[in-house]
Amino acid sequence: MTAFSPSEATASQFLPPADSQSRISQFMKQLQDEICQGLEQVDGTGTFQEDSWERPEGGGGRSRVMREGAVFEQGGVNFSEVWGSHLPPSILAQRPEAAGHPFYATGTSMVLHPRSPYIPTVHLNYRYFEAGPVWWFGGGADLTPYYPFAEDAAHFHNTFKQACDAHHGEYYPVFKRWCDEYFYLKHRQEMRGVGGIFFDYQDGQGHLYRGPDANGPAAEYSNHIGMPTQRSWEDLFGFVQSCGRAFLPAYTPIVERRRSKEYGDRERNFQLYRRGRYVEFNLVYDRGTIFGLQTNGRTESILMSLPPLVRWEYGYQPEPKTPEAELYEIFLKPQDWANWTPDALNS
Amino acid sequence: MTAFSPSEATASQFLPPADSQSRISQFMKQLQDEICQGLEQVDGTGTFQEDSWERPEGGGGRSRVMREGAVFEQGGVNFSEVWGSHLPPSILAQRPEAAGHPFYATGTSMVLHPRSPYIPTVHLNYRYFEAGPVWWFGGGADLTPYYPFAEDAAHFHNTFKQACDAHHGEYYPVFKRWCDEYFYLKHRQEMRGVGGIFFDYQDGQGHLYRGPDANGPAAEYSNHIGMPTQRSWEDLFGFVQSCGRAFLPAYTPIVERRRSKEYGDRERNFQLYRRGRYVEFNLVYDRGTIFGLQTNGRTESILMSLPPLVRWEYGYQPEPKTPEAELYEIFLKPQDWANWTPDALNS
Repeated sequence: MTAFSPSEATASQFLPPADSQSRISQFMKQLQDEICQGLEQVDGTGTFQEDSWERPEGGGGRSRVMREGAVFEQGGVNFSEVWGSHLPPSILAQRPEAAGHPFYATGTSMVLHPRSPYIPTVHLNYRYFEAGPVWWFGGGADLTPYYPFAEDAAHFHNTFKQACDAHHGEYYPVFKRWCDEYFYLKHRQEMRGVGGIFFDYQDGQGHLYRGPDANGPAAEYSNHIGMPTQRSWEDLFGFVQSCGRAFLPAYTPIVERRRSKEYGDRERNFQLYRRGRYVEFNLVYDRGTIFGLQTNGRTESILMSLPPLVRWEYGYQPEPKTPEAELYEIFLKPQDWANWTPDALNS
Repeated sequence: MTAFSPSEATASQFLPPADSQSRISQFMKQLQDEICQGLEQVDGTGTFQEDSWERPEGGGGRSRVMREGAVFEQGGVNFSEVWGSHLPPSILAQRPEAAGHPFYATGTSMVLHPRSPYIPTVHLNYRYFEAGPVWWFGGGADLTPYYPFAEDAAHFHNTFKQACDAHHGEYYPVFKRWCDEYFYLKHRQEMRGVGGIFFDYQDGQGHLYRGPDANGPAAEYSNHIGMPTQRSWEDLFGFVQSCGRAFLPAYTPIVERRRSKEYGDRERNFQLYRRGRYVEFNLVYDRGTIFGLQTNGRTESILMSLPPLVRWEYGYQPEPKTPEAELYEIFLKPQDWANWTPDALNS
């Protein structure tokens, strides 16, 4: 199927190539393969089980889940490729040009819930849409630690900063701020974790930031730097490929550094409690979850991101001057992790 | 404060009395007291701890939580009374007459999570609103069993049916259907449990059913019976009082019947898994939760309904011909529980 109609595009440098859909879906599948292979290697004993599925309205996917691994209590890596007669209202509100047109969407998403409270939960999602005259890339990766290790946050951010910088010097500063804005639990007044990068509606035109908060730091920074040089479909695809491939080097060294550290009930209980925030974010705010449920997606694959075991506790507050309190005070607020040095956070 | 302005009402029999707000908030507090006392008695060892809180924009409440009781792993009973300059969009969409007017809202809500998988989770909420020319009552109670005991579902329904029938012969049939419609997880195609009663926007005028699904069984039944005799504010307040006081006799006999039944890991694991559906419902669909989060309510009190421990499992399906399968096949679909007899569900 061809959802995209070239004649409606505004300028030739903004056209996707004729084989855009097959090239991207092939990349998204490769990314799923590479990540699953890398994670099996780092886990040591766990393996991914695959379910292939079809969506009655068009398309399908392959969901891969690891359970009860040595490192990963549960992890899911999902590839999907779907199409249909119209995008759901949540997306049309942002891209009105797509109204009345069929759409094509493909992407790979992942959430890992390690067993050790010292290893952060991590999320990745890259996606591509075509609908009538418009196409765009979106995605990112973000880290959610339970215990505060600044060097882990710094390593994660720096790896993605390098991947971004190779394509455009302003990607990281804008997409880092956008990530801080997006993974925010308003009802808790907390960030979900230490962030990473996040972007959406990247079609090579306009400001880098194209999110809803016109007064936030991401919009302010994006306005401040002005319009970037126009970027072609190939430029953006190259950028997304670099980001996707930055995930394993961004995350696996953190696993290696923390996997042997012993923990007790206190740390495990805190981890289960904090996992509740992950559930709250995904069910109340997450764009991917809402898109999936609104487009009659495969519920088991969409909710694969929810943790295997979670705790809620009324009125919990961390004890002052504990690692748990440090998480709240430093790690759940926006920080300049890419420029972190052992002294930076003490000043 | 007086949010309600009598001169704007359309007919005198629809006016609340001058002391409506103090009478209702007093009742809602009494209901909280009576329920907490009754639950402490049935639990035997657990007691409720109270937090009083104030809402910066106006009003406040008292949250009561029991933890680690003999029966109740966690239970919360919350009273609140709030006011402000305007209702949130989710309510104004249903009551456009309230736009531009200040509002007053009070209510008592409760969720209990027993430790034993044989004792159902239960929820209750009664609430009252005034805003400019309009006022209304809403609420109900519903039961969420983990294991299938038809007599428990029948007892719960019959107790509320009696409370309803004392006020209007058509309350139970409409509000039972409305409950089945409301506590439904679309993305799972499952009811949350065996239901009970649910109603909203009851102001004495119009059809009994005033929910969003114009083609559902509740609307159909309500249209079929036509407009009921107009009911005064006093009539409706009396009805809500009866429903509120029906809760303890509806629920505590079920606790007594099941509390000594032994269970193992299988039943506990299934309970923790099914509790995930409670979380999904409350965060994705629940009107009270959305109202609370949209009006900058007290997050800890709003999310007190979430279970203390929860499990998610990718791709779970009950084994055929087990009690778990019976729950899915019979108890998570609408049934005529008030007319249940040991033979009725076998036919």
